[in-house]
Amino acid sequence: SRTGVIEAILADCKSPDDVVEIARVMVAESKRALITRVSPQHVEVLKQAFGEDKLEWNSRARTVVIHDGTPAPRTGGIVGIVSAGTADIPAAEEARVVASEMGCETVTVYDVGVAGIHRLIPALHKLKATKPGAIVVAAGREGTLPTIVSGLVDAPVIGLPVSTGYGAGGGGKAALLAMLQSCSTLAVVNIDAGFVAGAYAARIANMIAAAYTRGREDRVEQEGK
Amino acid sequence: SRTGVIEAILADCKSPDDVVEIARVMVAESKRALITRVSPQHVEVLKQAFGEDKLEWNSRARTVVIHDGTPAPRTGGIVGIVSAGTADIPAAEEARVVASEMGCETVTVYDVGVAGIHRLIPALHKLKATKPGAIVVAAGREGTLPTIVSGLVDAPVIGLPVSTGYGAGGGGKAALLAMLQSCSTLAVVNIDAGFVAGAYAARIANMIAAAYTRGREDRVEQEGK
Amino acid sequence: SRTGVIEAILADCKSPDDVVEIARVMVAESKRALITRVSPQHVEVLKQAFGEDKLEWNSRARTVVIHDGTPAPRTGGIVGIVSAGTADIPAAEEARVVASEMGCETVTVYDVGVAGIHRLIPALHKLKATKPGAIVVAAGREGTLPTIVSGLVDAPVIGLPVSTGYGAGGGGKAALLAMLQSCSTLAVVNIDAGFVAGAYAARIANMIAAAYTRGREDRVEQEGK
Amino acid sequence: SRTGVIEAILADCKSPDDVVEIARVMVAESKRALITRVSPQHVEVLKQAFGEDKLEWNSRARTVVIHDGTPAPRTGGIVGIVSAGTADIPAAEEARVVASEMGCETVTVYDVGVAGIHRLIPALHKLKATKPGAIVVAAGREGTLPTIVSGLVDAPVIGLPVSTGYGAGGGGKAALLAMLQSCSTLAVVNIDAGFVAGAYAARIANMIAAAYTRGREDRVEQEGK
Amino acid sequence: SRTGVIEAILADCKSPDDVVEIARVMVAESKRALITRVSPQHVEVLKQAFGEDKLEWNSRARTVVIHDGTPAPRTGGIVGIVSAGTADIPAAEEARVVASEMGCETVTVYDVGVAGIHRLIPALHKLKATKPGAIVVAAGREGTLPTIVSGLVDAPVIGLPVSTGYGAGGGGKAALLAMLQSCSTLAVVNIDAGFVAGAYAARIANMIAAAYTRGREDRVEQEGK
Amino acid sequence: SRTGVIEAILADCKSPDDVVEIARVMVAESKRALITRVSPQHVEVLKQAFGEDKLEWNSRARTVVIHDGTPAPRTGGIVGIVSAGTADIPAAEEARVVASEMGCETVTVYDVGVAGIHRLIPALHKLKATKPGAIVVAAGREGTLPTIVSGLVDAPVIGLPVSTGYGAGGGGKAALLAMLQSCSTLAVVNIDAGFVAGAYAARIANMIAAAYTRGREDRVEQEGK
Amino acid sequence: SRTGVIEAILADCKSPDDVVEIARVMVAESKRALITRVSPQHVEVLKQAFGEDKLEWNSRARTVVIHDGTPAPRTGGIVGIVSAGTADIPAAEEARVVASEMGCETVTVYDVGVAGIHRLIPALHKLKATKPGAIVVAAGREGTLPTIVSGLVDAPVIGLPVSTGYGAGGGGKAALLAMLQSCSTLAVVNIDAGFVAGAYAARIANMIAAAYTRGREDRVEQEGK
Amino acid sequence: SRTGVIEAILADCKSPDDVVEIARVMVAESKRALITRVSPQHVEVLKQAFGEDKLEWNSRARTVVIHDGTPAPRTGGIVGIVSAGTADIPAAEEARVVASEMGCETVTVYDVGVAGIHRLIPALHKLKATKPGAIVVAAGREGTLPTIVSGLVDAPVIGLPVSTGYGAGGGGKAALLAMLQSCSTLAVVNIDAGFVAGAYAARIANMIAAAYTRGREDRVEQEGK
Ligand SMILES: Nc1ncnc2c1ncn2[C@@H]1O[C@H](COP(=O)(O)O)[C@@H](O)[C@H]1O
Ligand SMILES: Nc1ncnc2c1ncn2[C@@H]1O[C@H](COP(=O)(O)O)[C@@H](O)[C@H]1O
Ligand SMILES: Nc1ncnc2c1ncn2[C@@H]1O[C@H](COP(=O)(O)O)[C@@H](O)[C@H]1O
Ligand SMILES: Nc1ncnc2c1ncn2[C@@H]1O[C@H](COP(=O)(O)O)[C@@H](O)[C@H]1O
Ligand SMILES: [Mg+2]
Ligand SMILES: [Mg+2]
Ligand SMILES: [Mg+2]
Ligand SMILES: [Mg+2]
Ligand SMILES: [Mg+2]
Ligand SMILES: [Mg+2]
Ligand SMILES: [Mg+2]
Ligand SMILES: [Mg+2]
Repeated sequence: SRTGVIEAILADCKSPDDVVEIARVMVAESKRALITRVSPQHVEVLKQAFGEDKLEWNSRARTVVIHDGTPAPRTGGIVGIVSAGTADIPAAEEARVVASEMGCETVTVYDVGVAGIHRLIPALHKLKATKPGAIVVAAGREGTLPTIVSGLVDAPVIGLPVSTGYGAGGGGKAALLAMLQSCSTLAVVNIDAGFVAGAYAARIANMIAAAYTRGREDRVEQEGK
Repeated sequence: SRTGVIEAILADCKSPDDVVEIARVMVAESKRALITRVSPQHVEVLKQAFGEDKLEWNSRARTVVIHDGTPAPRTGGIVGIVSAGTADIPAAEEARVVASEMGCETVTVYDVGVAGIHRLIPALHKLKATKPGAIVVAAGREGTLPTIVSGLVDAPVIGLPVSTGYGAGGGGKAALLAMLQSCSTLAVVNIDAGFVAGAYAARIANMIAAAYTRGREDRVEQEGK
Repeated sequence: SRTGVIEAILADCKSPDDVVEIARVMVAESKRALITRVSPQHVEVLKQAFGEDKLEWNSRARTVVIHDGTPAPRTGGIVGIVSAGTADIPAAEEARVVASEMGCETVTVYDVGVAGIHRLIPALHKLKATKPGAIVVAAGREGTLPTIVSGLVDAPVIGLPVSTGYGAGGGGKAALLAMLQSCSTLAVVNIDAGFVAGAYAARIANMIAAAYTRGREDRVEQEGK
Repeated sequence: SRTGVIEAILADCKSPDDVVEIARVMVAESKRALITRVSPQHVEVLKQAFGEDKLEWNSRARTVVIHDGTPAPRTGGIVGIVSAGTADIPAAEEARVVASEMGCETVTVYDVGVAGIHRLIPALHKLKATKPGAIVVAAGREGTLPTIVSGLVDAPVIGLPVSTGYGAGGGGKAALLAMLQSCSTLAVVNIDAGFVAGAYAARIANMIAAAYTRGREDRVEQEGK
Repeated sequence: SRTGVIEAILADCKSPDDVVEIARVMVAESKRALITRVSPQHVEVLKQAFGEDKLEWNSRARTVVIHDGTPAPRTGGIVGIVSAGTADIPAAEEARVVASEMGCETVTVYDVGVAGIHRLIPALHKLKATKPGAIVVAAGREGTLPTIVSGLVDAPVIGLPVSTGYGAGGGGKAALLAMLQSCSTLAVVNIDAGFVAGAYAARIANMIAAAYTRGREDRVEQEGK
Repeated sequence: SRTGVIEAILADCKSPDDVVEIARVMVAESKRALITRVSPQHVEVLKQAFGEDKLEWNSRARTVVIHDGTPAPRTGGIVGIVSAGTADIPAAEEARVVASEMGCETVTVYDVGVAGIHRLIPALHKLKATKPGAIVVAAGREGTLPTIVSGLVDAPVIGLPVSTGYGAGGGGKAALLAMLQSCSTLAVVNIDAGFVAGAYAARIANMIAAAYTRGREDRVEQEGK
Repeated sequence: SRTGVIEAILADCKSPDDVVEIARVMVAESKRALITRVSPQHVEVLKQAFGEDKLEWNSRARTVVIHDGTPAPRTGGIVGIVSAGTADIPAAEEARVVASEMGCETVTVYDVGVAGIHRLIPALHKLKATKPGAIVVAAGREGTLPTIVSGLVDAPVIGLPVSTGYGAGGGGKAALLAMLQSCSTLAVVNIDAGFVAGAYAARIANMIAAAYTRGREDRVEQEGK
Repeated sequence: SRTGVIEAILADCKSPDDVVEIARVMVAESKRALITRVSPQHVEVLKQAFGEDKLEWNSRARTVVIHDGTPAPRTGGIVGIVSAGTADIPAAEEARVVASEMGCETVTVYDVGVAGIHRLIPALHKLKATKPGAIVVAAGREGTLPTIVSGLVDAPVIGLPVSTGYGAGGGGKAALLAMLQSCSTLAVVNIDAGFVAGAYAARIANMIAAAYTRGREDRVEQEGK
């Protein structure tokens, strides 16, 4: 369904052959299949099975989309994706690919750390101008960025903690706890859960897009009467 | 602002007199003041300061709203609040009061535990019929309910873990972790963070309501041309 | 003894040669030897030592049974095994093999996640019709399934948390805590402890089978008098 | 139902008046009401509401049973309750009262610590002679007792960790972990979860009693043919 | 000594009479005594023992200074104290009193939360103009403020986590971990350790003041030659 | 010194060449060198450097002793080493080698798990007959054994938790906590700290041996007078 | 028995009347009864029951000894007790009382913190001169003292972590972990386990005293031949 | 800037080519580039890209400095680096290289463990004679050393916990907690955060050096008037 959540194949602990098989069924049913957490081996076997031109591989997001040429549906939903550092990009990209497959236009603002707060403000202004329905903010280490973004925008912010950082609070733990303790209004997903963040943001953005359309249609209906 | 987040006074570690003073300023500025985590002493002193008829006390939510007669704004946003057991009601009610003060209509489905799954399905159908923009699901102990609700509705679900349960995983910990691990698409707030859950849900619901209105208005504009 | 717990060889941190040696003694004594947590190397060496036809290897359960042709004893006990997702199958299968070696008939209901709750109800009805003495429910991530099953069946349910899920509460931690906090009546074993779950379920199922037989025999005795 | 789990009122965070009201409904429906985790105030108000002779108060178990004179049903199930020290008795007694209300005969072996292992063996022999269907073993501090009991009896053992002990691993944590790590076959419930332990044991014991009866009846039926 | 750390009496777990006795010795030796973590009872007894005019009580810092009229030494060191919210003030004030007793001038910037980032920048500019040798930044909940301050000033920043916030990461835990994970250059002290933060800051500030003086003196010496 | 603690070379994170070099110095000074946590590579290079006959390699303990033919000193101290399962032997053996190098006679009782409590009692009787000055008890998983041994012997027992067991409380954690919570009188060392356990036991045993000798000598002295 | 461990009554969660009753039995059997963790109420009731002159109350150790005039046995064992700060004294004193009741002479070195390392060295020299068989070292916060003492003395050191310190690692946690990680040879007991520490030290000291006596006696025997 | 914090390239999760590229930009801008956490592959590729003579590789610190011949700036700041054992040297060296690149002279005191406290005192005297502005003290396992050093010197001490030690509190956890609980005045950085420790120390040392210079200059200015 348009606003519902996408089905995806989590390749992580499946053999390449199993993934190919499940993907075939899904493409047959839905025209497109999203596969997440793929390893290079998965990609190799998928390429052979489906042909390179039927396959969109995002190496940073570790995702593959298989399709029969049919483009992804477009819902009119707009999702912003913001990330703090290089290490946050895989999670951010996973969120972006998922939101895109769910029909959303995605707008990214990468590499605006807390260190570069002067770069953040203008970047956020550009993002706000696109009127995103929801914004995913990926951040590792001390996880400050979602708190700051949520204080500066109207759209609901989804905090996506990333498993960076060593020592106490490392591996995304400090980031997760800091987001749960945030003084701004934030909702969070689990560490590295780019899939959930992207799907949740798309769900919101798609509902907003649908409401806008409904508003227009209701008007027409009424006027038609 | 209409979709923005409400300012509230956290009474928890403030003296009754301090709360009265801050509330006075806020009422003067904004016509209404929301005070959360109030103790009976706070309520007593607030009643004396503002008069009982200027004061809405929700003893289960531990909130007080002070107003000068001006009603809360209405945005057209609709927020669902679902809870599993008696012990979850304070957090659920805190979320409800906040969403209401932020202009939303709130629809509650209380006391539908996992034990009573047969009661849950029809209750959720009624809730879905109200077309909520977002749904807060409060749950303690093993925190299953948000996962189940999110699998059955289209609206984004905010998991609100509640500090019930003794022993290992007690005090809301199992509930929080289970929501972070959920197989459904969920975003979560911290344990007992009814305020954040309500404000986040209202933010989404208000954006959806605003999109609908914008849809209607844009149509008019276009047609007007 | 018939209802007692099976002796098994935990291959995990033993050399293949040590495992062969212990297995030889056990087969000599008990006709059959159960070996758990075997690696492919263990299997290779065991095949050479005992001959492929004397050896039942379950690659998903990571178990090997060596026997001299003597079939496993049959007790009349019936054990149900339920699991939520693909990743839960190794633990579920380990439980199944152990229960089977302890003389029980096993009935499996795999791949009924919380997501697919509509598939769960009819599958559980079929399981209930087999009158299981005990049911092992394996579940990872948020570990909801045992709670739901226990609310729908009469037989005692053993919650078996599985080490799936990344981030906070990952590796089976959220699942374990959620089962300990369950609102349904549940007993649990440790994360990935398929062996213990299977042996515990068989112990119950075998006691029930023995009670039934005793009931019949007592009747005969009495009537014989 | 006979083998199903008992409904009980958890008094812990309810006002005495609420408890009285819920108990009234339950007695009307089911003749008996079990109330757990009662405070002295709860007891006082319950006495006034129902009359002292309608009320069985177990101060160590912190339970109250209200009844209209109807005795608890008897199922023929037998549950053993074993505990290590004085501090474990409240949890053990809570389990005992619950099993008893679920129709079981209960047999207790209290105050046999690991220190007094010489006292344990003969006590367990007496317990085994009663042929219990399941045994609850309550133990705090290092939680050794269930492991030892499970190694000496055939019946399934439910480990019930008790919140005793100070310092690292105190409050029942070491006991819970030790039971989860046990070398014997054990299933466990949460710390201080006497209610769950008792209900789980009764569920098993009642199934065994029912199987025995069914065995006798089936024989009769067959012979009747 | 001038740059060394101050001796203080931790009143926390001492009887009022013990505190009076130790304070008498200290005043006799050093003219002034600093007492921390005082309760109202401590203050009462101290007032009676030393007279109200010999006693400076800071109720928010929970400190008392006893003196014989001798003013605290002045070192020329300058310490900044920044805090985010009302709840952080006790820890911040404890740091301020300690730094002051160690001879430093203290400059405070309170109540500049992350929410109010627009208020923070001008406030920090004023603070920088005073040329502090070190800055203590107290912050609870998600502990963001020290990271931001350290990115904007030259002086070494001491992160002082404060035990605010409920739920996961509450009680100062998220704040501590976030500061340890900070992308800015920060050193931290333990949760609520205002005493250590103040003493550490003063140690740095006093060394800087001493270096300046030494610079002037060396010049004089050299020129004197 | 005779009762003092042995110097040893922890090979763990040193290159084979570094170990050889440090060992050379130590042998020159003390005639013997003890090297712990050696890998096969360390052993290879040590063999080449010192010659196979100068080297005692204990592959289970992962220790090497280098000597110039001089035998280890003999103190008369007696140390018992008890272990529960196969997986506990490396830690137990490390303790044994260290105690032996510190001059003690060592008496081992391996493979007496809690499961085999009937085997334990006679084995402990044999151990007691050797009059050990101290007993190291190595145990993993639920760590019960030291508690039981300490209840049955007079000598001080050193609990040595071993990093076995998977899931919650695995890796020696449950064992450590259970030993700290023990109802018997126990002192413990860290998980897998065979070196410390052996050295501590030897320290006690050597003091007892020395006291005995002193007793005899004092008597002589007195009588000589 | 002389070297065995003392029986004691843990008053903590027993009513004063229960304690009196158990104590009466113990005094009748053993002439003396040791009661630990007594509250002021316990003491009051014990005084009335036994008479003030039959009762030794140590308010800092929270212990009471009841006796019929019979003095505690003397074994010749010597136990040292060292503590760092005022807050460590209750645990240290509990250890001292227990060791004393077990027949040992006790030698205390209190109030030698790490801060006062210059005071520590001479104090330890005095302690060493008394030739203690074992030394209990109580330390809270960062728990350094046992490590340092163990590096300076020959006798086995028992680390006794004390529940002081706030924030991360507070309540004795850092102290316990630091002692488990110690570079010196140490064995530890649980946080605040003064009873265990004292009993363990006495066990060692008594074995040493007994060995000395045995040495003298053996000599006599031999000479007598 | 002179006192500000150095920019460095964290090679850890970057490809060698990415590192080369970023380094080129940095050298072009700032004459020198500091790269931390380099692997041997990084070094190989960097050598090829810049030429071996333009590259200072510190294999223990895992750092590389690239420069165009321009020497590092000299600020006059002096930083002491103290470490306890061999395993602490990588973290200590990382701190040293960073402080050096920030313009400081560095003075090292390595291998003075708590065991070798007699070696520590004279070594610290030598260090104090160099008048360091700040001292980094690296320590693993029980993390005692910073506490002791801070009690003996005037300069602010930065505790740098190192990820050594196995078992409970291993991997630097006990060290971190012990430093946070320290009785001396200490500030700490995260486990293995040599970079932060060095940069923080340099920040302090550079401020002190600058103050001295300012003192001299002010004098000149004043005299010039
Ligand atoms: N990267 C991901 N993280 C979390 N969940 C995912 C991810 N990719 C797919 N999923 C979801 O995980 C489930 C797949 O589980 P499985 O049946 O084990 O393949 C589906 O519900 C997917 O939508
Ligand atoms: N997969 C398993 N998980 C837990 N326990 C097992 C497993 N397989 C065998 N065991 C039990 O572990 C013990 C074997 O221990 P060991 O003496 O080390 O071989 C026996 O009591 C087995 O019944
Ligand atoms: N297996 C071991 N476990 C714990 N400590 C050890 C071990 N082997 C040697 N040691 C001690 O570790 C220290 C050696 O440290 P190092 O200077 O790094 O070689 C000495 O104090 C040894 O006595
Ligand atoms: N302060 C104490 N800490 C730990 N154990 C104690 C303490 N005092 C007494 N005990 C022991 O705890 C047991 C008493 O347990 P109980 O049967 O509950 O009275 C006996 O074995 C005592 O020797
Ligand atoms: Mg961040
Ligand atoms: Mg729930
Ligand atoms: Mg699940
Ligand atoms: Mg126990
Ligand atoms: Mg903050
Ligand atoms: Mg064990
Ligand atoms: Mg200490
Ligand atoms: Mg150290």
